[in-house]
Amino acid sequence: MRVGVFDSGVGGLSVVKSLLEHHLFEEIIYFGDTARVPYGVKDQNTIIRYSLEAIEFFKNFEIDLLITACNTVSAYALDEMRLQSDHDVIGVVDPGVLALKNAIPDPDANILILGTKATVKSGAYTKGLNSLGYHNLSAIATGLLVPIVEEGLYEGEVLQSTLHHYFGNLTKAPDAIILGCTHFPLIANAIESYFEGKSTLIHSGEAIVEYLEAHYDFTKRFEKTELKFFASENPEGLRRTAKEWLQL
Amino acid sequence: MRVGVFDSGVGGLSVVKSLLEHHLFEEIIYFGDTARVPYGVKDQNTIIRYSLEAIEFFKNFEIDLLITACNTVSAYALDEMRLQSDHDVIGVVDPGVLALKNAIPDPDANILILGTKATVKSGAYTKGLNSLGYHNLSAIATGLLVPIVEEGLYEGEVLQSTLHHYFGNLTKAPDAIILGCTHFPLIANAIESYFEGKSTLIHSGEAIVEYLEAHYDFTKRFEKTELKFFASENPEGLRRTAKEWLQL
Repeated sequence: MRVGVFDSGVGGLSVVKSLLEHHLFEEIIYFGDTARVPYGVKDQNTIIRYSLEAIEFFKNFEIDLLITACNTVSAYALDEMRLQSDHDVIGVVDPGVLALKNAIPDPDANILILGTKATVKSGAYTKGLNSLGYHNLSAIATGLLVPIVEEGLYEGEVLQSTLHHYFGNLTKAPDAIILGCTHFPLIANAIESYFEGKSTLIHSGEAIVEYLEAHYDFTKRFEKTELKFFASENPEGLRRTAKEWLQL
Repeated sequence: MRVGVFDSGVGGLSVVKSLLEHHLFEEIIYFGDTARVPYGVKDQNTIIRYSLEAIEFFKNFEIDLLITACNTVSAYALDEMRLQSDHDVIGVVDPGVLALKNAIPDPDANILILGTKATVKSGAYTKGLNSLGYHNLSAIATGLLVPIVEEGLYEGEVLQSTLHHYFGNLTKAPDAIILGCTHFPLIANAIESYFEGKSTLIHSGEAIVEYLEAHYDFTKRFEKTELKFFASENPEGLRRTAKEWLQL
């Protein structure tokens, strides 16, 4: 099976990493809209317009499935993308919600959703979790964590003070935290430590693997996956980051 | 005189503020490319392409002059923009360099240039200052300060630890600091305090007023300036920010 992975930038490589670890695909074609990243501060119409342009891009390739790794796209543009595609389009929100249910079935669990401004505003995770009976939810738009990850500050004072800025008012550690942005897995350790290891972290990449394995037939696994990386600007930069993150 | 002001987002409002304070123009037409902000992390070709699209936008209006408030655009796209325009196009880099010379004529002065990754990489300020004999220069790409300003964190722990992250290795306060990004004047107080008031700060808005008054005839001043705000997305948000920043 061939899969396309669409992201607003480089963050979706954290999803590619999970796909590779499970040897699910023969070929992965990645497109990052690096010329227009970040999507998380843009409005709904713009997010939908850019996402439909990505659909056009993937028409250049034979793919069986498209994964939108970006939480913001998944929260806003999935219906429109499905209408324009001949194949399945899967976002990361529903898989994240299901992964949470598998990890913590208790509907009284105290769940914290982290995301960009747009993702939090969409209420996509909240709606999904509510429909499964979860009611003890809070959400924080932790937008600054995106450029902090892009600057490579995975530890240190800037990250710590930003975590304190966002989480300082919480009186106790959440039972689970949804990392609702593909950048956040890169600082998962710091977030976990901040809450003294008391919170279960839900990661889009692992969630989507769980979802794919439940919904598709992966009897055949691939030792080697062909990888193709494209970007709307500076594709060399994306390939360099991919090499580093994916240890290619 | 009617002027167009182009910026990658809302930051250029700090330049509009200076223009208004000096009553230079009859009409100011502002265009912020909010759908594609920030430019400071993009590559040269993309910055030029987007800047030329802005030139097309301003062809809808009768303007006598175009100011590119964005330092990144000023550093990369000015020549191309001038070729496509029927009127003058002024960036903020040359005015900033001249304002520095007026403030601190000593060529041995220790000067720190702050900007986005793209602006620092362009070396535009360094070249300009070198040509005037300044040689004691350093530059730091302080990109994280942009989203910090956009989140409204003009003071507090996140800002302080980020300033420390960027400036912690400096052994003494610079004689002058060029605020080479339109967002930075909003945290000028914090930067000034960080260096205990020992550094002279150069602000693009004030620099451009100084430059305009030296190069154009402003015998007539305007008590009231007509303001028009446009944005490639969420123009209401831009107008709201303008009201707040410009105290309209």
